[in-house]
Amino acid sequence: MSRAYNFSAGPATLPETVLQQAQAELLDWHGVGASIVELSHRGPEFLQVAQEAEADLRTLMSIPQDYAVLFLQGGATTQQALIALNFAAPGQTVDYAVTGHWGKTALKQVKPYVDAKVAANGEAGGFRDIPAYGQWQLSKDAAYVHYTANETIHGVEFRDIPDTGDVPLVGDFSSSIVSEPLDVSKFGILYAGAQKNLGPVGVSVVIVRRDLLERAGQPRAEILDYRAHVKGESMLNTPPTWNWYLAGLVFKWMIAQGGVSEFAQRNARKSALLYRTIDESGGFYRNEVAAGARSRMNVPFFLKDEALDKPFLKEAEAAGLISLKGHRALGGMRASIYNAMPEEGVQALADFMRDFQNRNG
Amino acid sequence: MSRAYNFSAGPATLPETVLQQAQAELLDWHGVGASIVELSHRGPEFLQVAQEAEADLRTLMSIPQDYAVLFLQGGATTQQALIALNFAAPGQTVDYAVTGHWGKTALKQVKPYVDAKVAANGEAGGFRDIPAYGQWQLSKDAAYVHYTANETIHGVEFRDIPDTGDVPLVGDFSSSIVSEPLDVSKFGILYAGAQKNLGPVGVSVVIVRRDLLERAGQPRAEILDYRAHVKGESMLNTPPTWNWYLAGLVFKWMIAQGGVSEFAQRNARKSALLYRTIDESGGFYRNEVAAGARSRMNVPFFLKDEALDKPFLKEAEAAGLISLKGHRALGGMRASIYNAMPEEGVQALADFMRDFQNRNG
Repeated sequence: MSRAYNFSAGPATLPETVLQQAQAELLDWHGVGASIVELSHRGPEFLQVAQEAEADLRTLMSIPQDYAVLFLQGGATTQQALIALNFAAPGQTVDYAVTGHWGKTALKQVKPYVDAKVAANGEAGGFRDIPAYGQWQLSKDAAYVHYTANETIHGVEFRDIPDTGDVPLVGDFSSSIVSEPLDVSKFGILYAGAQKNLGPVGVSVVIVRRDLLERAGQPRAEILDYRAHVKGESMLNTPPTWNWYLAGLVFKWMIAQGGVSEFAQRNARKSALLYRTIDESGGFYRNEVAAGARSRMNVPFFLKDEALDKPFLKEAEAAGLISLKGHRALGGMRASIYNAMPEEGVQALADFMRDFQNRNG
Repeated sequence: MSRAYNFSAGPATLPETVLQQAQAELLDWHGVGASIVELSHRGPEFLQVAQEAEADLRTLMSIPQDYAVLFLQGGATTQQALIALNFAAPGQTVDYAVTGHWGKTALKQVKPYVDAKVAANGEAGGFRDIPAYGQWQLSKDAAYVHYTANETIHGVEFRDIPDTGDVPLVGDFSSSIVSEPLDVSKFGILYAGAQKNLGPVGVSVVIVRRDLLERAGQPRAEILDYRAHVKGESMLNTPPTWNWYLAGLVFKWMIAQGGVSEFAQRNARKSALLYRTIDESGGFYRNEVAAGARSRMNVPFFLKDEALDKPFLKEAEAAGLISLKGHRALGGMRASIYNAMPEEGVQALADFMRDFQNRNG
């Protein structure tokens, strides 16, 4: 088929013009006689790509100079382990707010290293809301407080930044980074796998306040040490050059489209349209997340009659709307509508949903 | 320019037909309406790609069934740290043969975790030869013995497999995997970053004898645990799908070309031609590695007169021969001639070298 509207939660849809540029220069990057994926990471060509990507991300996110920006392998999950290894002493207390599957994963990664306390936990309520800040049990001596800004599976998103006082705040922004303006200075560390809003899977971004790099952390190999990665400018070992390059193309596309504030408006319209379609369906579709915690990025929803799940997916695919099946942990459907999902795609989905309801309601 | 002959040490040249296929299907993989880089790693499309890649690598390398095969992020350097964490007890003795830069790097990664002994060290001789096995000081109680099969920078390659008796042998094959037939059953663990012989940077292959996975190792996060990666079939977290896919295309290309034994013959011819060109230059070019330890993959060489280095590189580039500059640690030149470098490329380099000598000798 021609290009479908792809609602995959990640790896996720990329801007078509970015893929077209990557396609055009895949065998010969800027006339050098080789692909960017075949060139040394230490050569002038890739260094330029790498530096522009960092500069463009700094522009997009208004990242202050006292923050280092890393482009690393290993995905967000690896960063979750490294954060404890780098920023907490062995056995030190750390606080975790658990508001969905990925918060649980983050917690699991650090248990071998630190005394991890659950400061807030939405599991009893099926992860359909974010525990009120007044109920969070924060430790005074915690090395940091960790939370998951947007839960990709449960579709739960923080709409503001938790206030943790002097304790550094660590945010997993894997599925919501660059989707709206963010005050980076409120964070100690902010990290994200790229495969939702930043580009292709295989590269992660870690933004860390430089003073935190002075913490001793725990015994660890150099390759697991953020200080060494900062010193090596994310080239302590060979970086995932093509993935980094493709993320850089996404950053340039975002800037050309108007930057993060423009995408924030588009994302607000896209998610509002989808939630409205669900809420106005008279129960034919339902989303169970509390109104104030609904994700702008990932919209899980259920059909009134489970027997309609298969026909819904089959007909959607025939209509050029793919990857709508919900995560196996929840079932139902999920529409992931990151920056690269155009408004026309969400409109097409909403139209299809209304039509499907009319035929099956 | 059109495609040059690219002698980069890694990221390195890829087969042109592989890049052409990746280019053709970059916006729409097999008619599904999306790029392979945009599809879920858990969907049927990518699962097929992943399974075929593993099966093809098993075919190419004749990997026995009692070995697990992992496709992971982090590069070879990350595996170097994980090998100690997964297969040695805290503080346990491990033996390292250091025959070049990458052997030193491997040793550095494990020092925080184990009692790392240097069983053999070629540094006093400038890493121009491999210490004779009779001189290796192996510890009887070592958790494993680690060596670097081919040193990418120093151009030193083991021509046989060290015999370590009952102590598992760990081999870093980053720059020589699938370049000639190898008896995998002689190894406990064999690993390689992909960016030389296997495909693009951003994915690494780890081949591990399954019984070793029962070792307790050291306290570690799940994401740093090979057992968890084996159980999760290399999808404990989102894998670098495009990189894995491109490696899979390289495997299919290798099989179509005749497999590892065919490449072993080509590589023998290619390296013989290059060393002959150097040795017959009457000292205009020189390679300093002992004859029995010369790498078939990476050929470092020096010009008699350093002042000719710049003209050599400039004229080579004009002749469509790129990335010949030596590693900064050694200076001079380096021609990396992995599987994907065609014989015509090495012939063109040899011709150029003779011509350059005639004009400047």
